[in-house]
Amino acid sequence: MSLYRIRKKSPLIHCITNSVVTNFTANGLLAIGASPVMSDEPLDVEDMVSIANGLLINIGTLNKHSVEAMFLAGKKANGLDIPVVLDPVGAGATKYRKEVTDNLLKEIRFQLIRCNAGELAAIAGVEWQAKGVDSGEGEMDILQVAMEVAKGYQTIVAVSGKDDIVTDGNTHYIVSGGHELMTQVTGTGCLLSAICAAAFSLEGNPLENVRDVLADYKKVAERASKEKNLGSFQVEVLNALHQISRGE
Amino acid sequence: MSLYRIRKKSPLIHCITNSVVTNFTANGLLAIGASPVMSDEPLDVEDMVSIANGLLINIGTLNKHSVEAMFLAGKKANGLDIPVVLDPVGAGATKYRKEVTDNLLKEIRFQLIRCNAGELAAIAGVEWQAKGVDSGEGEMDILQVAMEVAKGYQTIVAVSGKDDIVTDGNTHYIVSGGHELMTQVTGTGCLLSAICAAAFSLEGNPLENVRDVLADYKKVAERASKEKNLGSFQVEVLNALHQISRGE
Amino acid sequence: MSLYRIRKKSPLIHCITNSVVTNFTANGLLAIGASPVMSDEPLDVEDMVSIANGLLINIGTLNKHSVEAMFLAGKKANGLDIPVVLDPVGAGATKYRKEVTDNLLKEIRFQLIRCNAGELAAIAGVEWQAKGVDSGEGEMDILQVAMEVAKGYQTIVAVSGKDDIVTDGNTHYIVSGGHELMTQVTGTGCLLSAICAAAFSLEGNPLENVRDVLADYKKVAERASKEKNLGSFQVEVLNALHQISRGE
Repeated sequence: MSLYRIRKKSPLIHCITNSVVTNFTANGLLAIGASPVMSDEPLDVEDMVSIANGLLINIGTLNKHSVEAMFLAGKKANGLDIPVVLDPVGAGATKYRKEVTDNLLKEIRFQLIRCNAGELAAIAGVEWQAKGVDSGEGEMDILQVAMEVAKGYQTIVAVSGKDDIVTDGNTHYIVSGGHELMTQVTGTGCLLSAICAAAFSLEGNPLENVRDVLADYKKVAERASKEKNLGSFQVEVLNALHQISRGE
Repeated sequence: MSLYRIRKKSPLIHCITNSVVTNFTANGLLAIGASPVMSDEPLDVEDMVSIANGLLINIGTLNKHSVEAMFLAGKKANGLDIPVVLDPVGAGATKYRKEVTDNLLKEIRFQLIRCNAGELAAIAGVEWQAKGVDSGEGEMDILQVAMEVAKGYQTIVAVSGKDDIVTDGNTHYIVSGGHELMTQVTGTGCLLSAICAAAFSLEGNPLENVRDVLADYKKVAERASKEKNLGSFQVEVLNALHQISRGE
Repeated sequence: MSLYRIRKKSPLIHCITNSVVTNFTANGLLAIGASPVMSDEPLDVEDMVSIANGLLINIGTLNKHSVEAMFLAGKKANGLDIPVVLDPVGAGATKYRKEVTDNLLKEIRFQLIRCNAGELAAIAGVEWQAKGVDSGEGEMDILQVAMEVAKGYQTIVAVSGKDDIVTDGNTHYIVSGGHELMTQVTGTGCLLSAICAAAFSLEGNPLENVRDVLADYKKVAERASKEKNLGSFQVEVLNALHQISRGE
């Protein structure tokens, strides 16, 4: 129902995201009736975010130029009470990503951090064996760490995995379902972050709204998995977003 | 028939375009037998545009670096009588976009401006409520404004909408048809601009050639709309371009 | 069988590639069970390539910033004995591309150059009529030139065409098959280069491994060609990679 509600709102989402997923993210937002806009030029982003209903900051292919834009847009959004979502892609993979992530978290107030377990570990400073931008493996109590990070940064944390976890540091929800093919198409996590940014335009409890988006996204994966090959599966993810957001 | 004629010519189109639509634009040009080349590095673009049959300048994700390339490539193209098309994406959304658009129009001679109503309003300085890079809403006589802009800049202006308008300031055509799903896939307008750049390699009256491309593109939308979900619809747009340009 | 073997290894491939093909390359690598990571920020690439099993340098939309990253990542990879593949997209099209290609070849040790005939001609300094980033036409003994380039740079050279050629300067193989639609979807060559980078993580003779990848890729093209329209064909390329790499 959350995707259906987003369609009714039709929010404009300013995405500062990585070059791999721009097209898929834009089409995914359009598929649920939201409007995407992309801009990562420092001279451009403050005006752009001012007319948006949400901002996504995704560091997947960060560069010095776009990082400058992230800080400008994020601060502007904070000043205007426009919700900001962080997707700290590969935060554990390099020193630069870790440093940028830490500084973003220090200087910008995020309504949501959406990440995988490896990225959560990087933010929390917990040992973890990430594999590039993939989640990787390690031993930690993900729920425990997510709750601590949420408390520490006074934000919601959503961790994607076989079961998703979402928490504001006090309450938490576990969201089950989905399909493993979802991890084998690039940008499905990045798109989910963008959709979560759109969910902050909904009325009601933000934590519950994010939870409902995660649940709907699991359904999208399940419906798309009628196609078992990756090319067709990617197409079906967009189709399923379109259908489910229309209540079909 | 215009797409069929473009296939016979197989023009090379240099696209300086936004990061959201590069892949879709390249595949769309290939689908009609044209050759795309992308380059937005100032050190590279003058050589590249010199071997091209047309240049597209699309400001959708402009940055200081690519803007420099736009001016260099545009002026070089003007000097070599290579046609240049402007797609002023989101020109009304931010001051920077407006400023860049105005300067491009001042310093470069465009054969065509292809835009939506909101972008036209921004160029003409008419009040309009744009929504990010979407068309938005407002009250103006689009045809009247398009004709004035065409006259003022001695160019052709094509405005996409439910009905498309194309004019050189004297003559004008209205092109009907199409399908609303076309507005819900990212990059369909951007691709149309690239195809229009290719149309300037055709013999005959440029205004009529652009009109014919708009008409063919409406047919593409109609044919693609046999698929009602966005993922499949996007695929079908490329399929329909491929088919129609082969005379199927 | 080479794609099947890559799936067993699941290598992490750091791609510094062009903005047109990032999504298709990432999904193509994922489709064969490899992990893509993209980064072209000088401050980021040395750390990133250090955890990778292979590096792809593709100059398709090079800019000053990404070129700096290419040199840093390439040298770091050389120092760590991580294989590096060069895809010199459009090397013959502009002076800047030629210069960057020459300098890359001078300063970095490549395990493989994967290119088309026009790009090979540019590297070898042979007359050739390239068409942008397409192969173009000319008269040269491609095998002879490929062998000389391979010897000169002590690398493997793979030249894509109707028949592919792969040689280390001594031994050579001709790989036939495939389908012409493959040249009409953007990024199929770029993706092949990324897959070749993944092939260097396999045991056995590198020249034979590259040859086997080229042969598998011809089969991918053949299988995908059950769809004759470009939109669906592109989807089927990913499907066929997925299937063939699973031994289906």
